[in-house]
Amino acid sequence: MTSRRQLANAIRALSMDAVQQANSGHPGAPMGMADIAEVLWNDYLSHNPANPHWPNRDRFVLSNGHGSMLIYSLLHLTGYDLPMQSLKDFRQLHAGTPGHPEVGDTPGVETTTGPLGQGLANAVGMALAERILAGQFNRPGHNLVDHYTYCFLGDGCLMEGVSHEACSLAGTLGLGKLIGVYDDNGISIDGKVSGWFTDDTPARFRAYGWHVVADVDGHDAEAVKAAIEAARAVTDRPSLICTKTTIGFGAPNVCGTHGVHGAPLGDEEIQATREFLDWPHGPFDIPDAIYQGWDARARGAAAEAQWRETLAAYRQAHPELAADFERRMAGELPARFADHAAALIESAQADGKDDASRKHSQAVLNGIGPHLPELVGGSADLTGSNNTWWADCTQVTADDADGNYLFYGVREFGMTAIMNGMALHGGLIPYAGTFLVFSDYARNAVRMAALMGVRSILVYTHDSIGLGEDGPTHQPIEHLPSLRLIPNLDVWRPCDLTETAVAWQAGLERTTGPSALALSRQKLPHQSRQPDQVEAIRRGGYVLHDPDTTAQGVIMASGSEVGMAMSAAEALAAEGHPVRVVSMPCIERFRAQPQDYRDAVLPPALTVRVAVEAAAPDSWRVFVADERGLVGLNGFGASAPAAEVYEHMGLTTEAVVAAFKAQLAG
Amino acid sequence: MTSRRQLANAIRALSMDAVQQANSGHPGAPMGMADIAEVLWNDYLSHNPANPHWPNRDRFVLSNGHGSMLIYSLLHLTGYDLPMQSLKDFRQLHAGTPGHPEVGDTPGVETTTGPLGQGLANAVGMALAERILAGQFNRPGHNLVDHYTYCFLGDGCLMEGVSHEACSLAGTLGLGKLIGVYDDNGISIDGKVSGWFTDDTPARFRAYGWHVVADVDGHDAEAVKAAIEAARAVTDRPSLICTKTTIGFGAPNVCGTHGVHGAPLGDEEIQATREFLDWPHGPFDIPDAIYQGWDARARGAAAEAQWRETLAAYRQAHPELAADFERRMAGELPARFADHAAALIESAQADGKDDASRKHSQAVLNGIGPHLPELVGGSADLTGSNNTWWADCTQVTADDADGNYLFYGVREFGMTAIMNGMALHGGLIPYAGTFLVFSDYARNAVRMAALMGVRSILVYTHDSIGLGEDGPTHQPIEHLPSLRLIPNLDVWRPCDLTETAVAWQAGLERTTGPSALALSRQKLPHQSRQPDQVEAIRRGGYVLHDPDTTAQGVIMASGSEVGMAMSAAEALAAEGHPVRVVSMPCIERFRAQPQDYRDAVLPPALTVRVAVEAAAPDSWRVFVADERGLVGLNGFGASAPAAEVYEHMGLTTEAVVAAFKAQLAG
Repeated sequence: MTSRRQLANAIRALSMDAVQQANSGHPGAPMGMADIAEVLWNDYLSHNPANPHWPNRDRFVLSNGHGSMLIYSLLHLTGYDLPMQSLKDFRQLHAGTPGHPEVGDTPGVETTTGPLGQGLANAVGMALAERILAGQFNRPGHNLVDHYTYCFLGDGCLMEGVSHEACSLAGTLGLGKLIGVYDDNGISIDGKVSGWFTDDTPARFRAYGWHVVADVDGHDAEAVKAAIEAARAVTDRPSLICTKTTIGFGAPNVCGTHGVHGAPLGDEEIQATREFLDWPHGPFDIPDAIYQGWDARARGAAAEAQWRETLAAYRQAHPELAADFERRMAGELPARFADHAAALIESAQADGKDDASRKHSQAVLNGIGPHLPELVGGSADLTGSNNTWWADCTQVTADDADGNYLFYGVREFGMTAIMNGMALHGGLIPYAGTFLVFSDYARNAVRMAALMGVRSILVYTHDSIGLGEDGPTHQPIEHLPSLRLIPNLDVWRPCDLTETAVAWQAGLERTTGPSALALSRQKLPHQSRQPDQVEAIRRGGYVLHDPDTTAQGVIMASGSEVGMAMSAAEALAAEGHPVRVVSMPCIERFRAQPQDYRDAVLPPALTVRVAVEAAAPDSWRVFVADERGLVGLNGFGASAPAAEVYEHMGLTTEAVVAAFKAQLAG
Repeated sequence: MTSRRQLANAIRALSMDAVQQANSGHPGAPMGMADIAEVLWNDYLSHNPANPHWPNRDRFVLSNGHGSMLIYSLLHLTGYDLPMQSLKDFRQLHAGTPGHPEVGDTPGVETTTGPLGQGLANAVGMALAERILAGQFNRPGHNLVDHYTYCFLGDGCLMEGVSHEACSLAGTLGLGKLIGVYDDNGISIDGKVSGWFTDDTPARFRAYGWHVVADVDGHDAEAVKAAIEAARAVTDRPSLICTKTTIGFGAPNVCGTHGVHGAPLGDEEIQATREFLDWPHGPFDIPDAIYQGWDARARGAAAEAQWRETLAAYRQAHPELAADFERRMAGELPARFADHAAALIESAQADGKDDASRKHSQAVLNGIGPHLPELVGGSADLTGSNNTWWADCTQVTADDADGNYLFYGVREFGMTAIMNGMALHGGLIPYAGTFLVFSDYARNAVRMAALMGVRSILVYTHDSIGLGEDGPTHQPIEHLPSLRLIPNLDVWRPCDLTETAVAWQAGLERTTGPSALALSRQKLPHQSRQPDQVEAIRRGGYVLHDPDTTAQGVIMASGSEVGMAMSAAEALAAEGHPVRVVSMPCIERFRAQPQDYRDAVLPPALTVRVAVEAAAPDSWRVFVADERGLVGLNGFGASAPAAEVYEHMGLTTEAVVAAFKAQLAG
């Protein structure tokens, strides 16, 4: 019988050989955590290599994602569709084994990790999704949703602030099926962490309300097994297992040093390691007995089959719930969603009143929320300001997870990374709010949402200097253009109820990435539209107003400045200058339209163009060639009532008119 | 004799009346923390209202900056140049009393706060600056640098991840003269925090190695006094005083609820509060006895005078050190700095070798570091990758603060906010590194540096897909244009040693804001230049190459793509198309040049223009009208060797040539 250590050594060998072959990568963490991974994957993890998307599988997250060869080794050895050639091509283009794990690139990788701390927050989101779905769907005698979320993490994850945000909330919510395993190897890139990281981590996590299993020897399989048993036995709190390990375990001359963290071992040390580990096999040569010891296919198929029986019994007892569960796990919206949205948009156009777009957003949630049980809302402690709470919201708590709203606390980054985890888990569509300026705090999680292509809705209210008195620290300037720079993120900035409804619909229907909604604090005027104009909103930009005679130019705007654009057009018309007004709630969508549509909205011949937006004007250069046509903000804001700040910053109807006339003059 | 409670009530009255008058603001925190502030400011805080810039004053930071009326009340009452009219004009344009405290707007405000958690991190930076300066300057018998840093903070600060990063490091560094006061009022905007914030905060901070004074009644002056005494008595660790308070103390019907957090009390409740507090005076009416009880001018003048004597004695004993101290606290560079820099740049141009710009950066540090004792470097656990460590670096530790390098750990946000605090303290110029992509983690602290106008140098290496195998999570795409959007931030992306030296010089000489250096992981070719070209680098953009015959167009680039631009120009020349090459290491600087200079570099007649940069191309539209001229990246990167990623993303010399020729063709 193959020993546990021998099984673990297969990970060590694959990791050091793949890093050596790639001539880059991180052998230290996989070699250090191999024994732990062996116990977890062989004795506990419920997964089916033949179906990485089986809904009730345990989730496994490698938050210290630089140790990617650990997960690639595990996936290969246990029988996933990840051939040895992919491991040999570690870190090569299109090999399925990128430098850091990327969801979608490799079967069995649940989330993209590498930016430290966020994998842990994703895991919190996955455990939370499990908890909420269990609360919503499980019925007496039917444990339809019932799985663990395991997360490996390193010192770096624990130094990052996002670990605090996510783990503090996980403690409050009592996520008992979340089990973290901390690779306490005492080393980070700069050397021994004792010079910069001296937290008493067990005490820290106990302070969050976690159950902590401290001082586990990460190279003693029985100790690891006992720790996992202890963690699973505590169901009312998340557990953190703190394992002492030797980074690069097995490399006799460099283990335990930062030299083994992020560089190949070199031929000589690899040879020494082979001898030390008694691993006589060549690079990428795994004996059959080792494969047999790892093969999880039969066990995985049985686990899934058993769950399929649970699902069948559930379907028998609760056919509608079962259908809804399957629909939601497939990421499909309700069949009638588009009809509901269309009706909402039609009534919005007919009955829309002047109001702040953040309030419109709440109205939209009240309209579509009842049809979308997969919505899970929340706010980073700004619920009343973000207007993210709607009539049927109920709080998810430690005692009752059958809810649809999370009070995330003042934790923007953790919130966004948790949303990513929930969206990746499936069955839920997360949305949540903060002030637009504080998208900064969450920025890399927004990027990760876009990179992973998850569906989430980021509700960013107080989207400009229009918030007034709170002043420059709270007034976004660069945030709109800066968010628009993130690939695969749709940024919507609606100008009234109708556009807000379309923006929500677009975000919810978008299955390939996140959407941000930039919403005003202040009241905005409702705009009149014909049905074809309403229909065109989804294209991201459209003609909101055309003069009776040939336009001399175009004024374009988004959100709170659409009203200003209309006023300026009116003033110009009165002076004999007919002007087209284009509302542009989503530049990304508009730029993705066919050339003929774009040319119809912004005819190339109409070269007199003004864009007005309460933000740094850079997003608009793609449409406006003349710098004089950019009416925006070129510095930080000020603390004063909103109207005075607009005036102070030179963002006025008069400025728009002047920008237009300056170009007319040539 | 006026009672402590009566003195504190002056803060309460001013706060509720100013918020009422402004019809916006946050009365809850000032009213809740008034008793604590009264004890701290009247019994402990060493400050001189007549000279808010006295170097050895205690620093006071209000991290829960929404409670700004607390600090405005304190400054007014103790005798700063903040007249009552400013309080009456709370939150009005140019009143000196913005919605959140803004450094520079109000005498005595040490840092801009509002974005939660960062004030606390700034305070860590100030305490660290004090510690380092004490280590560098104090001599036996001469405690020249010796002051406390006090920081008020709320639940929101403690929920934010940046509090974890900064306070963990403060614990490791044993910052004994940092004293935090936690306003544990149990309320945040969404209501009672027990639903989302259940940390055992004293245990959490003990886990960081802090001294904690728990369970202090924040409305019992004697208890507060005892707690501050206890905190000051512990000198080897930072202290956190956890005070239980009632938010909005004194407002009998709404205190203790989130209703008092962020909205005016209303006339009726204000009247009830006046009665409850036995405060019969009208709005903004402070009796003389109260003023007398608060007046800190005599005590402050005496404290400063005493310190001036200390300084005089120090100057006697250590004249050179004293001169250096005064120079550094004045924010002036050494008299010969410009000469040193000029010599370095000249030798760089003469002897520059092909290398990665991150290594050039280290070479520059080795060249100028010996002349700049105020430099304090560091890295977020990427010292060897960021090349931020130079020959004379010594680590600052808890045991020995006479150093100039900080191992910040994996804490980008905390690091950047701590740097802000150090820069605001004065006497130090902080620089520190991380990978460019992780500027995301620190983004709001970068913004705050720009908003506050502090001098710091942000060293961002691995600045593009050129980092290769680490893949999309580590490859910046939107980061360069996104940083350039932040007002008052200079973003430098040098192409070789000469430009790197100029960038460092520019950043160090810039006293009005931060500078970011985007540096390559990979080797870059050294460029030839005439002296006038070297001189022009500081203008942000200049002609690097001009053909012998009239140019048909311009290729512009920054950093690692300058070499590609030169190759493309060579290829085009070989095909009979003479091309000018413009190197543009700092777009902000170039755009700030006079029109005639800009026109000389980019002649309006030269309309065939290509910009090439390994980033989202949006920064370049300001110079390039034709979209075909933008050669950049339009999506996320990939994990592969650098050259293959460039090829895969279409960023090649051939693409630059094609972009040029497409425009020639019309």
